[in-house]
This record gives sequence, C-alpha cells and structure tokens, in this order.
Amino acid sequence: MLTLAEHKPGLPGGEVWLVGAGPGDPDLISVRGLKLIRQADVLVYDRLVAPELIDEARTDAIRIYVGKQPGHHPVPQEKIESILVEQARLGRSVVRVKGGDPSVFGRVGEEMIRLEDAGIAVHIVPGITAASACAAAAGFPLTQRGVADNVCLSTAHHCEGAEDSHWASLAADKHRTLVFYMGLSSLIEIRTQLTKHGLAGSTPAALIENGSKRNQRVVHCTLADIDITARSKQLKTPCLLVVGEVTAMAAEQRQTLSTRQSTAA
Amino acid sequence: MLTLAEHKPGLPGGEVWLVGAGPGDPDLISVRGLKLIRQADVLVYDRLVAPELIDEARTDAIRIYVGKQPGHHPVPQEKIESILVEQARLGRSVVRVKGGDPSVFGRVGEEMIRLEDAGIAVHIVPGITAASACAAAAGFPLTQRGVADNVCLSTAHHCEGAEDSHWASLAADKHRTLVFYMGLSSLIEIRTQLTKHGLAGSTPAALIENGSKRNQRVVHCTLADIDITARSKQLKTPCLLVVGEVTAMAAEQRQTLSTRQSTAA
Repeated sequence: MLTLAEHKPGLPGGEVWLVGAGPGDPDLISVRGLKLIRQADVLVYDRLVAPELIDEARTDAIRIYVGKQPGHHPVPQEKIESILVEQARLGRSVVRVKGGDPSVFGRVGEEMIRLEDAGIAVHIVPGITAASACAAAAGFPLTQRGVADNVCLSTAHHCEGAEDSHWASLAADKHRTLVFYMGLSSLIEIRTQLTKHGLAGSTPAALIENGSKRNQRVVHCTLADIDITARSKQLKTPCLLVVGEVTAMAAEQRQTLSTRQSTAA
Repeated sequence: MLTLAEHKPGLPGGEVWLVGAGPGDPDLISVRGLKLIRQADVLVYDRLVAPELIDEARTDAIRIYVGKQPGHHPVPQEKIESILVEQARLGRSVVRVKGGDPSVFGRVGEEMIRLEDAGIAVHIVPGITAASACAAAAGFPLTQRGVADNVCLSTAHHCEGAEDSHWASLAADKHRTLVFYMGLSSLIEIRTQLTKHGLAGSTPAALIENGSKRNQRVVHCTLADIDITARSKQLKTPCLLVVGEVTAMAAEQRQTLSTRQSTAA
C-alpha cells in the first residue's frame, strides 16, 4: 500500500486533485501527495511549492506555473480556476499543488466550488500547514497543558466589518497560541491591535522565516518588539509569526530563562 | 532526495524523533515520517497510529505500544517519557510515532523537555493534523474569504480557571471556524457554552468520525443539534467537531441549500 508509484499515468482522467505540498521542505509532503505528483498528466503549481517536488513529475507531464507573489498576481485566481476546468475537460488528470494545507488560507474553497459547478470530480489531499511545521522546526508545541489549550490560525487580513471583534476576540484568551500567516507586512498593526485589546507586550513571540527549509531562521522576541525585530533582522517572506507562552518552551529560550532566574536568585 | 529508504538502520543512535503519523490514513504520513519509521531501531507508538505504518518498520525493530484510550491510560505519560530516555540511552535510534501532528494536542512539549533535560537530541517531525484532514475529506475549507478569516483548534478541556474567558472568546468572532478535538463526550457543554456566549444555534456544524479513514462518516447538523445528532447517529471516537459557516460549503450541503432556496422561491 505504501510503495510509491512509478512515474507513469494511472489516475482517472478528467478529475482534479487539490494537493497540499506542505511547508517547504519537499520531504514534508504526504506519501499520497507525492504519488499523485508522480502520476499526474498536468501539474498546476504555486510559488511556494518546492521545485524538487515538481521535478518528481513524469517527464511528459504538462507543468503550469501559476505562482503569486505578495501584491503581484500574474495569473489571477479566476484564471487559475479556468485552467483547472479546461485541463480536466481535455480528459487529463490534473494535480493542483499548493503550499501548506489547501484548507488553511489556501483558497481551496473557490477552486473546489468552481470545479464542482462545472461537473468535475474534485479530491482534496491535505498537507502539513505552516504552523505545525514552524513549531516543530523551532522546537516548541502549539498547545501545552496548563499553558495554551487552544491555537488560532489567522492572518492580518480580516473579513470586512469584522475588524474590532476579530482583534478583541483573538486577544481575549491568555491560554491561546496565536499564529499569523502572511503577517510580515502587518506586524505593526498586529502588535498595536493585540496590545490595544489587552494582550501583554511582554508575551513571548517567535518569527520563523522559511520554516522547515534549510535556510530557515527562527527569531525570538516579545509581542512589543515584533516589528522592530523583523526589521533589524531583515526578515523576508515567507515568514510566520507565533505569539504565546509556548514559544518560550524552545530549548534555547528555556536556557536563557533559567540562566536569568539563577542570576536573579 | 525523495526516494524512500530501504528497511535498514541508518539513523544516529541515542537520538529521538517525535513524529506525527497524520490523521489515520497511512498514506497521509509525510515522506520523512515514513522514512524514519522504516529506519528506526525502536518504535514507540500510540493507539491512533495506523497499523500499516508500524508494519513498515524493520523486522528487527523493537515495537513498544503505549496507546491510551479515553479515560484509560495503561501506560502513563511519565512512563512513556522514561521509555524514550531509556531506549535512547541504550544507543538506539528511537522513533516516537503519534497520531496527527505532535504540536497540536500531542503532548510533544512534555516529551521534548524531558528528553532535552536528559541531554538527548530530539527532533520533531510535523504531521497533518486532524482538522486539515477532516476538512479535506468532508469537502470544505477551514478558512474562506468573506466567510471565515481564522480557525481555532481547541478541546473541551481548558486550562484551570480559564473557563469563562475561554468560551467567551471562542464564541465572539462570527468569522471564525471552531474545531474541537476529542470533543465527543463534551458536546452538551460545547453547545451550551457557545450558545450562552452568543453563537447562534443555527450555525452549521459537522461531525467527522474516523476522518480520512475508509470507515469515515461525516454528519452535518447545526450547533443546536450537535449532541442529539451524535447520539442518534451513534458516533464514536475518534470524532472531530467543526462549527462554522465553512461546513455548509461541502457539495451535498450546497445542493441541499440551493434546493431549499429554489423550493422557497
């Protein structure tokens, strides 16, 4: 069952798989995801998908790059959906590869509905979301008994009209881990809103650039410092922000804390 | 790079890998996770890990089962940690396999700290968490532009003293998807607390039993009905609860809605 398929066709034509490629490290894709990439007639893929994964496709597979950059979408979402419909209607098996998990800020909803409305069979294959991968790579959990009993995955872009209740409810629970995707350009707003709504500026935080990849960087700071830290360390996208006491559980942070405590004692 | 290793030793001895096996379907483990299972000297594994994955271990690997059932922990957490330390100190490579993602309700924090304090190298390998897998399998996203701009992963077991702020802040955001892990025995409390704190009883919800596995069952209802529905459908653990408008985006739900609307028109 777990033997990986060879590079040959074998998927039903005319169907689409929306596949999460995971956080960046190509080995963090699921076994199923890799099988599908190796079998697809057509691959439609994003900017954050590891090139090593696209290299796994059949040599005769059609590769269509539809990557978006922050603020620059050369292939609009509507056009991506049309490509999926068009390729499936040609009777091809289409694997749409997305960074992370398709269900978490992956716009899988739009693509799924467009395909279903066109009468095309759609399958969603989950992936490891950036929050899980960055926490693992930085060496802290997202939930921890007595520290954080829930974790909220969010962006700085909120639904229209939701602004105040959004920030207030995020900040209201001291036992919550807050994870912000695509937050690098909104760090000042995140800091301002969370502290305005009662979260202590001294709450520990971590910024993880290129989480899970070889060039990953993890920077620890406090909520009050997130924007200054990101600037002084020249952090770049993709970068995940985690705010909460769990971030202080990373080994080097625990050492710093215990040194501080023993010096103070 | 992505070729899966053969069943032979190859990991450094005396180290421990805390590996997420994903949600149940063995093909949803990461490529790295499967490689590690195939190479480990010792496997220490939980109840919700697919048996097919344990069968992937070397024939001479030591297999230690430490499964917990709801309310019944034959091997206490403390003892599991001692086993990991002991096996690593014997110079073996130890792969600790957990269901889902280790960072999300996986008690990875305790095991990580215990090992680090014992001077043992620890590596965390993320997995696909149940929320991602259940959403994919049920055919709805966890976030969706204009519908849900954040998703909160929670349990019905909260930190001591946090009760009221916990529920109030969970219920406060109408643009949030709420996911409850291990919530089946607490459905009455979840319904009561969320509606008490202002979430509409008519909010759509889904219960997913054995998410991602062959015997998966998805049941749609509303927040007001979650406990009655679970009882009438005789749902059993593992079962994930998702509350939020995104659940109504599943194909059969959209069909029901559009039929209702056209009948009403």
